[in-house]
Amino acid sequence: MGGLVESSIHCSIQALEEGDERLARRIIADESRINRMEMEIDSQVTRLLALQQPVAKDLRFLTSVLKINGDLERMGRLAVHIARRTLSLIQQPEVRPVVDIPRMAALAEDMLRKSLDAFVRQDAVLAESVLPADREVDELRDKVFQELTHVMQSQPARVLAALDLMFVARHLERTADHSTNIAEDVIFLVRGDDVRHRATR
Amino acid sequence: MGGLVESSIHCSIQALEEGDERLARRIIADESRINRMEMEIDSQVTRLLALQQPVAKDLRFLTSVLKINGDLERMGRLAVHIARRTLSLIQQPEVRPVVDIPRMAALAEDMLRKSLDAFVRQDAVLAESVLPADREVDELRDKVFQELTHVMQSQPARVLAALDLMFVARHLERTADHSTNIAEDVIFLVRGDDVRHRATR
Repeated sequence: MGGLVESSIHCSIQALEEGDERLARRIIADESRINRMEMEIDSQVTRLLALQQPVAKDLRFLTSVLKINGDLERMGRLAVHIARRTLSLIQQPEVRPVVDIPRMAALAEDMLRKSLDAFVRQDAVLAESVLPADREVDELRDKVFQELTHVMQSQPARVLAALDLMFVARHLERTADHSTNIAEDVIFLVRGDDVRHRATR
Repeated sequence: MGGLVESSIHCSIQALEEGDERLARRIIADESRINRMEMEIDSQVTRLLALQQPVAKDLRFLTSVLKINGDLERMGRLAVHIARRTLSLIQQPEVRPVVDIPRMAALAEDMLRKSLDAFVRQDAVLAESVLPADREVDELRDKVFQELTHVMQSQPARVLAALDLMFVARHLERTADHSTNIAEDVIFLVRGDDVRHRATR
């Protein structure tokens, strides 16, 4: 499921950058596979919890899977949102340059790959290395928002396209948040240490 | 935790409608209580799973709690996002009328209240009654987006305020999605029937 979602996110960015309508439509069509997989994983985890009655790390593993499953499903949905914005952008005058969107996308993809690798290898150090990038993505989103707000204020004909790009940035930022959740779950799984909400505690 | 989140959502709308800066700041300050509660509930559920080794409906109850807990935490965060947009809106020329935002808010609040009641009473019929409102909220969001896009195109001086309101609508729509998730979890809990993704299967 991680592989499918990684591929959807990756393709959604590629479709956006290349204005590839066919690819965007494929991502939208592929969502149902991700959704079916989410339900299958949930039901397998519930079955294992009932039949194996795991404790300690085995139990943390299964509760992590439940959460990561939810994060991945949501990321699949975000890839679909990006694909829909791409279909809208293809029909509009271009807004250039928003150089920070590809940088956000590269960071978000990297965070997802690392957090999934960290889960598979149960590597808390690798998971920790994901966390600082979340702030970097937030800062890029702020820059993108500022730049696009300026476009909207100065070029009314480009309001729609700038809005589409703004939502793409928002979806990428949310993707990074979900990778952060996955990384935090891996740290909890390996160490039994809940590192969520460190900043707001 | 449901009560706290309901109150945050309710107050975030009230602060928005009345331009109440103090109330908006209180919601932002209250988020840490919701976050602490989320972690406490997660840890209680994990303890119960390990010590009681529940099966069948008891097990479904605990896995539902894990998911609903995540939904509620996210809704607390959305209330904070709305409060932040309110703080920004207070300093700007007003955009009037966006009558559909209060209607979206009323629907979203109603969905949350019903889905939490359905959970407490384990009432699948009440949970089912939540689901149709999700589409209604989506339709209102589309109307709000259209209206605000028009404001942006015709009044460059109001771009910032229109953007704030657009994100408020987006956050309300996401709130409704989380209530839908909770309602679906209640149906699964009571009946053992997974009703997610009915439209995309």
